[in-house]
Amino acid sequence: MTLFLTIDAGGTSTRALVHDSDGACTGYAVAGGGNPTASGVESVANVMRSAADDALQQAGAQPGDVDCALAAMAGSAVGLTGVERGLQQLGVSAPLRIGSDLEAMFFTGTPQLDGAALVSGTGAAAIVVQDGVTKARSDGRGWLLGDVGSGYWIAHRVVRAVTADLDARGPRTALTDALLHAAGVTGGRSAGKDVLLDQLVSILYAIPTPGIARFAPLAFEFADSDLVAGEIIAGAAEGLAETVLALHAPSDDAPLIVGGSILFHQDGLRADVAQLLRDGGWTGDILPVPDGTLGAVVMNLRVAGVEVDAALHGQARKSLSVIRSRN
Amino acid sequence: MTLFLTIDAGGTSTRALVHDSDGACTGYAVAGGGNPTASGVESVANVMRSAADDALQQAGAQPGDVDCALAAMAGSAVGLTGVERGLQQLGVSAPLRIGSDLEAMFFTGTPQLDGAALVSGTGAAAIVVQDGVTKARSDGRGWLLGDVGSGYWIAHRVVRAVTADLDARGPRTALTDALLHAAGVTGGRSAGKDVLLDQLVSILYAIPTPGIARFAPLAFEFADSDLVAGEIIAGAAEGLAETVLALHAPSDDAPLIVGGSILFHQDGLRADVAQLLRDGGWTGDILPVPDGTLGAVVMNLRVAGVEVDAALHGQARKSLSVIRSRN
Repeated sequence: MTLFLTIDAGGTSTRALVHDSDGACTGYAVAGGGNPTASGVESVANVMRSAADDALQQAGAQPGDVDCALAAMAGSAVGLTGVERGLQQLGVSAPLRIGSDLEAMFFTGTPQLDGAALVSGTGAAAIVVQDGVTKARSDGRGWLLGDVGSGYWIAHRVVRAVTADLDARGPRTALTDALLHAAGVTGGRSAGKDVLLDQLVSILYAIPTPGIARFAPLAFEFADSDLVAGEIIAGAAEGLAETVLALHAPSDDAPLIVGGSILFHQDGLRADVAQLLRDGGWTGDILPVPDGTLGAVVMNLRVAGVEVDAALHGQARKSLSVIRSRN
Repeated sequence: MTLFLTIDAGGTSTRALVHDSDGACTGYAVAGGGNPTASGVESVANVMRSAADDALQQAGAQPGDVDCALAAMAGSAVGLTGVERGLQQLGVSAPLRIGSDLEAMFFTGTPQLDGAALVSGTGAAAIVVQDGVTKARSDGRGWLLGDVGSGYWIAHRVVRAVTADLDARGPRTALTDALLHAAGVTGGRSAGKDVLLDQLVSILYAIPTPGIARFAPLAFEFADSDLVAGEIIAGAAEGLAETVLALHAPSDDAPLIVGGSILFHQDGLRADVAQLLRDGGWTGDILPVPDGTLGAVVMNLRVAGVEVDAALHGQARKSLSVIRSRN
């Protein structure tokens, strides 16, 4: 029996899974974020090792038993060092494959080899997959260069709108009280804007970039009742649709898999993006997925020569779902 | 004779000046950037010490001879530690006063005690000065929270527009070739966008925030010939005008002093902002200044009880201009 260790490293959490070539899962564990650009190579190594260790223990397997190891993650060049170091420290001697986190998201949603994926979590990006590999990508170069419609992008607009409101440079918005409360700023509006802004400055600049993405949910909370919040979310929807429409679908019925913490949890945004994509001529099905773990399993299996058809895809999905419900 | 040491610390350079109570300058030196939030306390201490040392040597004075020391800078709380340490290491025993860099800009432009100042350099902010002290401020909380129309703000839009262009998510813009060249990306458009973007990612993320402000001049270069660049500059002008118009002028004829590397060097932007301010009902004179050095001298003199009228202001301006032309 071939033993597979599959790791799915996201910006906010990292999942490790031990399974066999039928996609039957025997160990599963979750640890902290594993995005090397955001967290640094050393912390990635620690997180990977910790998640893999827990999953192997749960499966009753030794690190040396692993035949095939694959990690799906962003920023593969830096990531490779961190993951390899982490797994070597653990005693995994199988050669490590690195896969794209965006492909993992795509293969979570479909056993097909052609289609597209759109992700919005801390960052945002889209890819076109053809014959099982990434053919083209759009956006996804991090908080400084784009990631339009991502958690960071939304949160950055929130903190700027709040600062402008307090300065009376911009419109009043319900986001102000919400952000001041969420960020832990003390004293109400009566304290005076400089007192509030000085605290906001201290708190927000102390959060390593792009960690302010944690405040993105505020914009969704007020999107229907507050004009400023509504405009931020509308802008995110437009940006995400443009990111996809800049790509060419491999066929008219190619599925678009959408995921990431923002797109998966915010049904309203997902509906808006879907509508804009329909208006823009995108014809394939649009399917949401929670993360890239199942897709990373599929990639690990395929690298090992296992043919993953719809039946095996469904089987692995069920097994993953069962082991998750037990954890 | 009272010996004054005046320091004007900006984001990109720090100026130290030795002068007497008549504003007659005997020593002048320039060193690197002195913004404590951008450069860190230790580097601020080094820069201050180096500039002060050079200026004192030129004046033929000893550090122990200094009677009155004042440093004008942003982020005074952190700055104080750095400057004090720097000057103490040098042997200056006079108590150090810290002044606002925005007030220094204001007092460079006028001997009056009432008016306003608008600065756009790496950051951007406006203040209202009444009876010689800051009465209200607008924006200026750094790259994350605003600084609308600043060098960072403009450059951030440039790098995003270029990334969107390369992705074909956004319009084509002349900024793309210009930024790729300025940032040192090798291989032309024919190299393929992923090759170019990978390099751009490596180069831009390696620049400590908000250092990408150095690319802001590209937007000005193409503002008249390129739609994307033109929109960025128009947005900067609108943002800067809003920053001022959120404040209340202390009187109808109160002067507005405008400065900072962006506003001082970009005549077109300054004219656009002036027009928007007129349209918005701002009536006082709008006067550009190159930096806050003269104003810091004025602040140092006033703290020591010297009355700075128009005659002394003009005298100090001339003396500063003479010593600068010799350096």
